[in-house]
Amino acid sequence: MYKAIICGGSGYTGSELLRILYSHPDIEITSVTAERNVGSEITDLFPHLYPYKGLKFEPLDKETLFKKGDIFFMALPHSASQEAVDYFYKKGKKIVDLSADFRLKNLAAYEKWYEVKHHYPTTLKEAVYGLPELYRDEIKKTSLIACPGCYPTSAILGLYPALKNRIVSPTGIIIDSKSGTSGAGRKTDVSLSFSEVNSGFKAYKIASHRHTPEIEQELSLIAGVDLKVNFTPHLLPVPRGILSTIYAKVTKDVDIIEIYKNTYKDEQFVRVLDKGIFPDIRNVIGTNYCEIGIGINKETDTLIIVSVIDNLIKGASGQAIQNMNLMLDLPEITALNTIGILP
Amino acid sequence: MYKAIICGGSGYTGSELLRILYSHPDIEITSVTAERNVGSEITDLFPHLYPYKGLKFEPLDKETLFKKGDIFFMALPHSASQEAVDYFYKKGKKIVDLSADFRLKNLAAYEKWYEVKHHYPTTLKEAVYGLPELYRDEIKKTSLIACPGCYPTSAILGLYPALKNRIVSPTGIIIDSKSGTSGAGRKTDVSLSFSEVNSGFKAYKIASHRHTPEIEQELSLIAGVDLKVNFTPHLLPVPRGILSTIYAKVTKDVDIIEIYKNTYKDEQFVRVLDKGIFPDIRNVIGTNYCEIGIGINKETDTLIIVSVIDNLIKGASGQAIQNMNLMLDLPEITALNTIGILP
Amino acid sequence: MYKAIICGGSGYTGSELLRILYSHPDIEITSVTAERNVGSEITDLFPHLYPYKGLKFEPLDKETLFKKGDIFFMALPHSASQEAVDYFYKKGKKIVDLSADFRLKNLAAYEKWYEVKHHYPTTLKEAVYGLPELYRDEIKKTSLIACPGCYPTSAILGLYPALKNRIVSPTGIIIDSKSGTSGAGRKTDVSLSFSEVNSGFKAYKIASHRHTPEIEQELSLIAGVDLKVNFTPHLLPVPRGILSTIYAKVTKDVDIIEIYKNTYKDEQFVRVLDKGIFPDIRNVIGTNYCEIGIGINKETDTLIIVSVIDNLIKGASGQAIQNMNLMLDLPEITALNTIGILP
Amino acid sequence: MYKAIICGGSGYTGSELLRILYSHPDIEITSVTAERNVGSEITDLFPHLYPYKGLKFEPLDKETLFKKGDIFFMALPHSASQEAVDYFYKKGKKIVDLSADFRLKNLAAYEKWYEVKHHYPTTLKEAVYGLPELYRDEIKKTSLIACPGCYPTSAILGLYPALKNRIVSPTGIIIDSKSGTSGAGRKTDVSLSFSEVNSGFKAYKIASHRHTPEIEQELSLIAGVDLKVNFTPHLLPVPRGILSTIYAKVTKDVDIIEIYKNTYKDEQFVRVLDKGIFPDIRNVIGTNYCEIGIGINKETDTLIIVSVIDNLIKGASGQAIQNMNLMLDLPEITALNTIGILP
Repeated sequence: MYKAIICGGSGYTGSELLRILYSHPDIEITSVTAERNVGSEITDLFPHLYPYKGLKFEPLDKETLFKKGDIFFMALPHSASQEAVDYFYKKGKKIVDLSADFRLKNLAAYEKWYEVKHHYPTTLKEAVYGLPELYRDEIKKTSLIACPGCYPTSAILGLYPALKNRIVSPTGIIIDSKSGTSGAGRKTDVSLSFSEVNSGFKAYKIASHRHTPEIEQELSLIAGVDLKVNFTPHLLPVPRGILSTIYAKVTKDVDIIEIYKNTYKDEQFVRVLDKGIFPDIRNVIGTNYCEIGIGINKETDTLIIVSVIDNLIKGASGQAIQNMNLMLDLPEITALNTIGILP
Repeated sequence: MYKAIICGGSGYTGSELLRILYSHPDIEITSVTAERNVGSEITDLFPHLYPYKGLKFEPLDKETLFKKGDIFFMALPHSASQEAVDYFYKKGKKIVDLSADFRLKNLAAYEKWYEVKHHYPTTLKEAVYGLPELYRDEIKKTSLIACPGCYPTSAILGLYPALKNRIVSPTGIIIDSKSGTSGAGRKTDVSLSFSEVNSGFKAYKIASHRHTPEIEQELSLIAGVDLKVNFTPHLLPVPRGILSTIYAKVTKDVDIIEIYKNTYKDEQFVRVLDKGIFPDIRNVIGTNYCEIGIGINKETDTLIIVSVIDNLIKGASGQAIQNMNLMLDLPEITALNTIGILP
Repeated sequence: MYKAIICGGSGYTGSELLRILYSHPDIEITSVTAERNVGSEITDLFPHLYPYKGLKFEPLDKETLFKKGDIFFMALPHSASQEAVDYFYKKGKKIVDLSADFRLKNLAAYEKWYEVKHHYPTTLKEAVYGLPELYRDEIKKTSLIACPGCYPTSAILGLYPALKNRIVSPTGIIIDSKSGTSGAGRKTDVSLSFSEVNSGFKAYKIASHRHTPEIEQELSLIAGVDLKVNFTPHLLPVPRGILSTIYAKVTKDVDIIEIYKNTYKDEQFVRVLDKGIFPDIRNVIGTNYCEIGIGINKETDTLIIVSVIDNLIKGASGQAIQNMNLMLDLPEITALNTIGILP
Repeated sequence: MYKAIICGGSGYTGSELLRILYSHPDIEITSVTAERNVGSEITDLFPHLYPYKGLKFEPLDKETLFKKGDIFFMALPHSASQEAVDYFYKKGKKIVDLSADFRLKNLAAYEKWYEVKHHYPTTLKEAVYGLPELYRDEIKKTSLIACPGCYPTSAILGLYPALKNRIVSPTGIIIDSKSGTSGAGRKTDVSLSFSEVNSGFKAYKIASHRHTPEIEQELSLIAGVDLKVNFTPHLLPVPRGILSTIYAKVTKDVDIIEIYKNTYKDEQFVRVLDKGIFPDIRNVIGTNYCEIGIGINKETDTLIIVSVIDNLIKGASGQAIQNMNLMLDLPEITALNTIGILP
């Protein structure tokens, strides 16, 4: 049994880590922290986590915690994560960081987009970007995972086979993404209230969302050239799910679906759909799966990729546990072999 | 390993049986029938049931099926179930019937409320009403379970401790229930379309819903007198969940919450909440739990019980599997020890 | 042209007053106040109120305002309303108060339920309860209207014909009400966020909601006896609408629907539905109508009344304008003769 | 007073015509047809249209109808509209056709995309595409309007200023559109049921939606070159509203927002938002407005246009009435000067 600690357990990624790990046979939760809820029971905030009845939020007291855990999930806000990650990393712990603090390799990009200084550039260099479909071997060897953002996960998995195989142009890529409200976190904000979100739909942070440099970093590495994308996030009136509709110019006359299926043929959590079939976010809600549908507009030579994930699972806590399984040399699917609940 | 067959697998109770049984270590699904979908893959109707990829709907050919199964889940419409249940029962199979055909002990009541003849009165007498919290011992011994309706499950579990302990009057009971749309089944009906249901709310079948005699039968048995209730169902714009608000006149000055907690202290799937706390249907969605909150209006001496379940799980397929576990002498919680997915 | 001022215009009752009055031919808005938004444009908070582009929120400066208005809509929180109402009333203005401050005739009841002192008992005595179907003549003569709460409007209109005509018992009345989220106001509260409300449903403030004494005051006046009710509010995952399901013991064998139709035959904003037809909140969203369906359970001699309104219109701002029309001797339907927007 | 007839009044565009025309001072409805509902009251299908209580659906008997109407709204399915339009047009009536039958000038394109023959090519030539912002003068002079599709309205209004002023490239345009469920009509289809749509989101008819040739026809006329677009529709879990996110390559260094504002400065129903502000579909629900937000990605020289309309109003029945007002030389805003209902 490994001892796991969740730092920042009062948000939705924290509650999802608790939910999923409940069915993990090799993990025992020893502490959950939440500064503003110290002393409250976890079930006060999340009545559905009833099996954790009795477990209370603790303060993030690093010296106490490092003695109690083998593996640390950091579900803190960006910039709050830096110091704690560095501390536990240097103590030799295994860390899965769900914040953005260790994702961008380019320090200047991090400081520009997140508007804070990065104090641990050396530790940053050690971090592995936790997208198992691209970096499985590195993940198995590292102790520090920077878990991808939700939008980047859907976008990168959607474009990886096309860019890697050089079948689309790296310029002019459009990523039009739509996310459920849980992506904004568990917040008191009138613009996220039911009365304001229900029956609505809008784009936001056009050409200015912080996930843009993360998407560009990874797609550039895949394509082998520095590329820029148009990324537009939208807020869907659903609690969960991301659907990204991605457009790229086709440059090679090949069987694209075949290439996609082949690329992901050994992946347990990516499904490429057959010709003419496109995913609904409902197909993957409650699961760690990414489903990808492929369309081609022959009139305009455009590849249209539709990629869906559950933003809180494959886009956050499920992927974090997938990474943990790899780091601990456990079967990758442990605790993640579930069917979503529909309708 | 037991072999299970699902008759009528194209509705939501069928898909939920498949979803839950996927994680049951002692059950193997050998056939799923659906007359109107013979030959289709289950994943054509339910893409989220991806692990069943390749499994196809079969016709309900009784002679073929009885050789392939040990336990039969009947998820057929009422009246369609009668004959098949009788057939498999007489062949010595174990049967969990999710239809209404074997719930009402009073033949005349069945024929009046369901407007069809019952052809198997002898078999009807053998059926046990599958509410484990009331009939666990009988369930363990029988081969034929009549699984309770969704509304009755929420109403009966809500009233059981009060009526059994004679702390409320058996007359004048009000059961004001609200259900999500999946209770109406997987149907093509304009009145169930998103455009017509969303942002709406209504009562229906006032003083005329078919679950009324079922509720009255069981409450009368508990109270030891023939009683009548006012039962009003409503349609909620949510996919799942039933919340019943129940009113009864208090006749004894006792600690009611204590009595409720005591009654259900050994139950794994019923939780009585502390004073002043009332359940949201969200607490139990995706689970086999019933949560009950207790309020008392001192000005009017009225007990106000709020009872919530997931209509497709504790109100149907989960309870069916709970019954199966009991019949097969397996741990009652097998495949049902889950946390719901929120938000 | 009358000059109207809205005190407290940053909430949903304020925005609805603005929306409805936009089509009122006899009213000109001269000021809208909102302490916390002074200087902001109204369209910053409510982009849909585009025709008011340029109008800004002002502070509630009584001396400035009283010179600018003939009729004052007070959409302030309870207790904040008292002083301003008293001030403008003594200056001879016409006032429609949407807060709870002048609804309860019993000072002690007000102070107990609202937990604040009432400083203007003399003015309180002058206030008329603004339910036109009951108090039309008094409304026409007064300068101070206490506009009813949303739940009380649905409950009182639902019970009025039955209690007035003594066809039900005044004891044992149950009012099971369900309201959309806008009833909670425009608030930053995680429990009202989309992620927490969507797909959920719950009862709240059981046997303890502040609208209880208001309902009891008015029903007692109608019935001619001091009565108590069981009132249970619930939170629906819809933005607007209240549906109250009301239960009362029938004591007379009469044609109840006929009595209801007769009682409201001259009312423009109450519709009694035919036998067997029950309302959906959707029927009245966006309108000032109350629709009432009548059912009878012969087995239990229970009258089941289903009453629906739009909580922000007939339950607040529309009724306020109906009252204003009466006070100003304008046609009662002015600006309220609309059809709701469906789907 | 003009006499108006609605052919095909049992769908949502029919009910919206009735709702909006109720407040039109110059129009009287003399007949509403609906083949499958002949003899039913309109309020049986649409209880919210209460002021039409008593009005019944009639059969589409052309000889009877042409005597009863001056202006004919054709809200029939495509292909069903052809013959009736031709008949009334030749009788000298004014016609607003909401079907697709007279939109495509290219007969071959119509027959390919709609898979039916067009029997009235001569009448087709007479039809004016009813987008007032582009064809106001022609609309005023014609008797036959082909009302634009909902998606095309949002796309064309969004791109018109950019293409007309040659500030973007006509090649490589992406139109990523999201529509509410009412766009699919009032249908009995399990895939449109609440249980299946709620909490879901999907793309559909990728590179194959029938509105594609309509969008291309009009954009080509504006740009002065034959162009092709990538158009991807998606189904939103909301009842109403379309949001189109449009991407085009910028080719000129000009003040684009200024050009947009200038293009629409005299339009009553198009609003161009200020820099950095983007519309929510909620802003325009219940109104005839189109709101447009403009963003620019300097890194990729891409113009990002976000255009929102109410699909049933500016995308259908409201625009039909705007066209009618122009044809009848009435003020264009008559019956359309409304504020939407929020929340």
